[in-house]
Amino acid sequence: MTLGEHLLRPRSVAIVGASDDLAKTTARPLRFLRHNGFGGTVYPVNPRRDTVLGEQAWPSLEALPEVPDHAFILAPTEGVPAAVRQCVALGVPLATVLAGGFGEEGEEGRAREAELQQILAGSRTRLLGPNSIGIVNTRTGLTLTANAAFAEPELPSGGVFVASHSGSMIGAILSRGIARGIGFAGFVSTGAELDLSLGEICEAVVDDPEVTGFALFLETIRHGGAIHRFARAAAERGKPVIAYKLGRSEQAAELAQSHTGAIAGEDGIADAFLKDLGIARVETIEGLVEGAALMPKVKPGLGRAPRVAVVTTTGGGAAMVVDQLGIRGVDVVAPSEATVAALAARDINAGHGRIVDLTLAGTRPAVMKAAIETLLAGPEYDMVVAVAGSSARFQPELLVPAIAEVGQAAAKPFAAFVAPDAPDALRQLTATGIACFRTPEACGDAIAAAFARRPCHALTKSALTGPERQLDEAEGYAELSRLGVPVAPHAVVTPDAQSASIPYPVAVKLLSADVLHKTELGGVVLGVNNDAELEAAADGIARDVPQAQPGLVVERLLVQSMTKGLGEVLLSFRRDPDAGPMVMLAAGGILAEIHKDRSLRMAPVDRETALAMISEVRALKALAGYRGRPRGDLDALADAIVALSQAGAHIVEAEINPLIVRKEGEGVTAVDAVVRIVEGNA
Amino acid sequence: MTLGEHLLRPRSVAIVGASDDLAKTTARPLRFLRHNGFGGTVYPVNPRRDTVLGEQAWPSLEALPEVPDHAFILAPTEGVPAAVRQCVALGVPLATVLAGGFGEEGEEGRAREAELQQILAGSRTRLLGPNSIGIVNTRTGLTLTANAAFAEPELPSGGVFVASHSGSMIGAILSRGIARGIGFAGFVSTGAELDLSLGEICEAVVDDPEVTGFALFLETIRHGGAIHRFARAAAERGKPVIAYKLGRSEQAAELAQSHTGAIAGEDGIADAFLKDLGIARVETIEGLVEGAALMPKVKPGLGRAPRVAVVTTTGGGAAMVVDQLGIRGVDVVAPSEATVAALAARDINAGHGRIVDLTLAGTRPAVMKAAIETLLAGPEYDMVVAVAGSSARFQPELLVPAIAEVGQAAAKPFAAFVAPDAPDALRQLTATGIACFRTPEACGDAIAAAFARRPCHALTKSALTGPERQLDEAEGYAELSRLGVPVAPHAVVTPDAQSASIPYPVAVKLLSADVLHKTELGGVVLGVNNDAELEAAADGIARDVPQAQPGLVVERLLVQSMTKGLGEVLLSFRRDPDAGPMVMLAAGGILAEIHKDRSLRMAPVDRETALAMISEVRALKALAGYRGRPRGDLDALADAIVALSQAGAHIVEAEINPLIVRKEGEGVTAVDAVVRIVEGNA
Repeated sequence: MTLGEHLLRPRSVAIVGASDDLAKTTARPLRFLRHNGFGGTVYPVNPRRDTVLGEQAWPSLEALPEVPDHAFILAPTEGVPAAVRQCVALGVPLATVLAGGFGEEGEEGRAREAELQQILAGSRTRLLGPNSIGIVNTRTGLTLTANAAFAEPELPSGGVFVASHSGSMIGAILSRGIARGIGFAGFVSTGAELDLSLGEICEAVVDDPEVTGFALFLETIRHGGAIHRFARAAAERGKPVIAYKLGRSEQAAELAQSHTGAIAGEDGIADAFLKDLGIARVETIEGLVEGAALMPKVKPGLGRAPRVAVVTTTGGGAAMVVDQLGIRGVDVVAPSEATVAALAARDINAGHGRIVDLTLAGTRPAVMKAAIETLLAGPEYDMVVAVAGSSARFQPELLVPAIAEVGQAAAKPFAAFVAPDAPDALRQLTATGIACFRTPEACGDAIAAAFARRPCHALTKSALTGPERQLDEAEGYAELSRLGVPVAPHAVVTPDAQSASIPYPVAVKLLSADVLHKTELGGVVLGVNNDAELEAAADGIARDVPQAQPGLVVERLLVQSMTKGLGEVLLSFRRDPDAGPMVMLAAGGILAEIHKDRSLRMAPVDRETALAMISEVRALKALAGYRGRPRGDLDALADAIVALSQAGAHIVEAEINPLIVRKEGEGVTAVDAVVRIVEGNA
Repeated sequence: MTLGEHLLRPRSVAIVGASDDLAKTTARPLRFLRHNGFGGTVYPVNPRRDTVLGEQAWPSLEALPEVPDHAFILAPTEGVPAAVRQCVALGVPLATVLAGGFGEEGEEGRAREAELQQILAGSRTRLLGPNSIGIVNTRTGLTLTANAAFAEPELPSGGVFVASHSGSMIGAILSRGIARGIGFAGFVSTGAELDLSLGEICEAVVDDPEVTGFALFLETIRHGGAIHRFARAAAERGKPVIAYKLGRSEQAAELAQSHTGAIAGEDGIADAFLKDLGIARVETIEGLVEGAALMPKVKPGLGRAPRVAVVTTTGGGAAMVVDQLGIRGVDVVAPSEATVAALAARDINAGHGRIVDLTLAGTRPAVMKAAIETLLAGPEYDMVVAVAGSSARFQPELLVPAIAEVGQAAAKPFAAFVAPDAPDALRQLTATGIACFRTPEACGDAIAAAFARRPCHALTKSALTGPERQLDEAEGYAELSRLGVPVAPHAVVTPDAQSASIPYPVAVKLLSADVLHKTELGGVVLGVNNDAELEAAADGIARDVPQAQPGLVVERLLVQSMTKGLGEVLLSFRRDPDAGPMVMLAAGGILAEIHKDRSLRMAPVDRETALAMISEVRALKALAGYRGRPRGDLDALADAIVALSQAGAHIVEAEINPLIVRKEGEGVTAVDAVVRIVEGNA
């Protein structure tokens, strides 16, 4: 059996610490399994009782007549190591630990975590948790969870498998699905991910024939490599992934010694990571629950703002959807002349605005159906959204079959929103597989997220590991030049130099791998125009720097051609510990930092992606002919982005700040750079 | 009787065009009135029938035994003028017109609109609509509407009166309220506002004893003066107003000939207008429905980011709320040491993070209650939010009474969010008056909107009207100086001038009220250092400008002291046709435009408000000591904002671009300005 089968289709499960007291959390898994008719063998393990909830109990795992496929350990924190040790000794392939107190809670917790890791090392036992509230397969009745929310009379099924860092949220998602008539294939709470991570679990079940897609509730990006492998596998199988991630509001962590981290922010990196993996990141919790149904028909990587038709019987309700789409960069466009004519040929007046408002006529099912069909056929549209009014509340039997018929037949993405509270209409539409939404916010959110996905980034070779070294500026330029990033002409001289081979004007800078902020130490002189000034500048640096930082000896100077341009940008490459290699383009200067005006992608990127990144940095409009201004060489900038993004496995981080953007046709030039490599692999 | 009484408490209503055919829209009002037990007299008017739906019908308004308080005219567009004419002739105090086709639809529509206006002129008849779907008072059974959504078996009552530009949305709000156990005092669809505007209607009912607050659904800000008067009246009576406004995504309209409009955008102006009126602007439709209950306890004008405690039994659910608050500028803060101690004294472990996570213990009502009470008592908090988990779904009888008891007793604002779908808990909490939310998005939205309200701006005298005139730059400076805005030293000379009384270096500029873009015409020379250069500059302008714009004669030049500073801003005053006098501060330069980095307020503003505006312009961080940079004179900037905001009634618009911000203590200086006034009133 595979890990995926142990997770979702175990033949036998043991519940270690199953309680006979119905009021206790530890009584829940057995109760839920029986209520939902789990077909496999269940072994309650309880050393103090002969029976549990009326079933035979076993004194220990060892006492069982077979090695179970999965042991759910409900013991308190202190009892966990012994229980896991027993699993390892018996060769139980999968153990889930409910208790917390490992790793997340101070030194003691970390010691416990280390103990568990030691117990597992080299064994065939895989561990889910600790702090996992369990796993559920709604098809088989496997309700191996202590989450009270699974006390539902019935668990509806569906194709989407829910994986969540948070244990309580699988319950919230379950109940919100039930309210909307949406069932799921299963649920897993991944807890502390001591062994099995969310990505690995999802990858393990990706081939389950009854899992058609995934919905993730993420606290943060952890074990990004595993998520990447899973996303790749899911993309190859055409099983879409949708994700809600906490932390949009977090203060951006100062992630690295460079500026990159500060400007990108943890959430910014996570956002780029998810989109580059082809994962639709929603920002509303109902977008996660309701949006999964939309994903299968939306292909990742449209590469431009999607164009959507909105057809309605209720102007106000439709306007809310238009607004929610608009603030998320989705264009709602009026039908083309040809489409207007095609509508007219079916006696439908398209009106004049962006919204096709059928008014009262649209409550007639045939009219709404004809309108949707015609709009779906319009080559100007990527998608059609129908917005229904009060008829959806009072007469779902009229509108629903019409919308469902045309929506199901549609080759293009199609979704519905109902302006009033209309739970029956939503349930009926959902049952036919139509993506439909209770709020305009979730509707706009899910549509925007579906189209914002990019094709899943290829897996890259892992970075080298080893002692790291910061290169000096000249070494950094050598690395950049090798990659194909243009750098300013420069020469290395000693402080007693009287001339340099670089044409004036030049900048003279302290050259040292140990100093990041040379300006603050008096280590930079700009606008040096002749040999005499060069000598003076070199003398000045040799004199000032040791005064500013005693002990620092000025041995070498960099003489660098002064470069003028239309603007400057910050271009960087770094290996994020969670998300992997990323390339960032940001507007130059202090305002870029204040506005967080930047674009991020997983590295490497192709030219098309580089151009998309340029269009995402708002300040770069100023270099793209904005209000008649001269154009910067954005083609050369795209080349530089592509080049830097292909940094070799030995490069840990490379930040060019600034990269000067010259006039169209004149290229770009790096005039300052910090590069860190893994030693000995350059 | 007052207008408010005619609107909400008519003794008699006539339904002109009432249909006997239940399938017809025009049969609805009578049906609804009877179903909901309206106690007043109802007169169906139908010239072709003796009875309508089993009741006596009257052939015309004239035939009625009395003049009704309110006539609801259901006639098609063509029949409206005659019906309204009859109302006027009879002195019917209030007529509502259902049909559209007035004003909004081309020339024909505008002609019909003019006809209606002419009919109404000088009469005592007030008109609701056209294109109004009617008005409802849930207390009295007045269901005078053709909106199908009012076919509810029961209309729950509440204190909040809903006014909407959109007719269909009153139905959507009604049904969404019913789903949540939220009733409303009444509903009005204001339609085209030919006579009665939304603001006037709300002001008219503000003293209705059963109306305790307002919820507005706005398509745009129309008739802003009336909304202002209403908001003022509501604020004086302590009746809070909450509003959802469409158009957050609209392309910013180029509203005026200056930059102000482009940077502010229609929605930006509306947003500032609503907040300055003390109106809580929400951005989710459920925030509107659910948020009204929160408003009474939140005082407008906190003037800083609110500090909120989040207490929960479910970490994931609480984290979603924290996120939704955080992205909207509401701080969730950990309890102070004193509060932690107070919690500990009641055996509650506050944990370590921002969230007070009671885990399983919190499902015990006494624990949750004690925790909420203790947090409410913490002086560090402006508000407490409780987040409940699955127990809210399965055992609302436990948690709800505990939360309700402490929430009702709270002097501070209090709200609840439930992570799972838990309609019973929400309904029960709602019934006790506790603000509670179904989604984390509506929760964060409503809380942020409630605290973002500012005290209602005082009503200002209306602007003067008359022929407008653009001042030349020197005249503009004179106006600014009178207001107390510092301007650069300058003199007016003729093109043959050989010197000026201004110390060098100076700028020399074409002086003409007719030319807005003098630089493009060659009308500006900067960095003029002596008399010879001045002469050359003047000659150059006199030569170049007429070439660039034939027919333009250069008669006068402005010689102006060159001013250096740390940065520059755009400061402007304008009278928005809808919102009234506004003052805007924006970062200077092209990036401000790209980033829409600005702050807007209704004028005039006080110093505190001016300082708040400065803190809202993100780029101005660079002048506030960001990363050790020198500080700009933000005090002087605040003074200039206050001064400009007090522009007299004759000033239509004044835009200073740029206003130079010098070093701390050195002041600010206007170096370019465009001022428009109403002629003859300067």
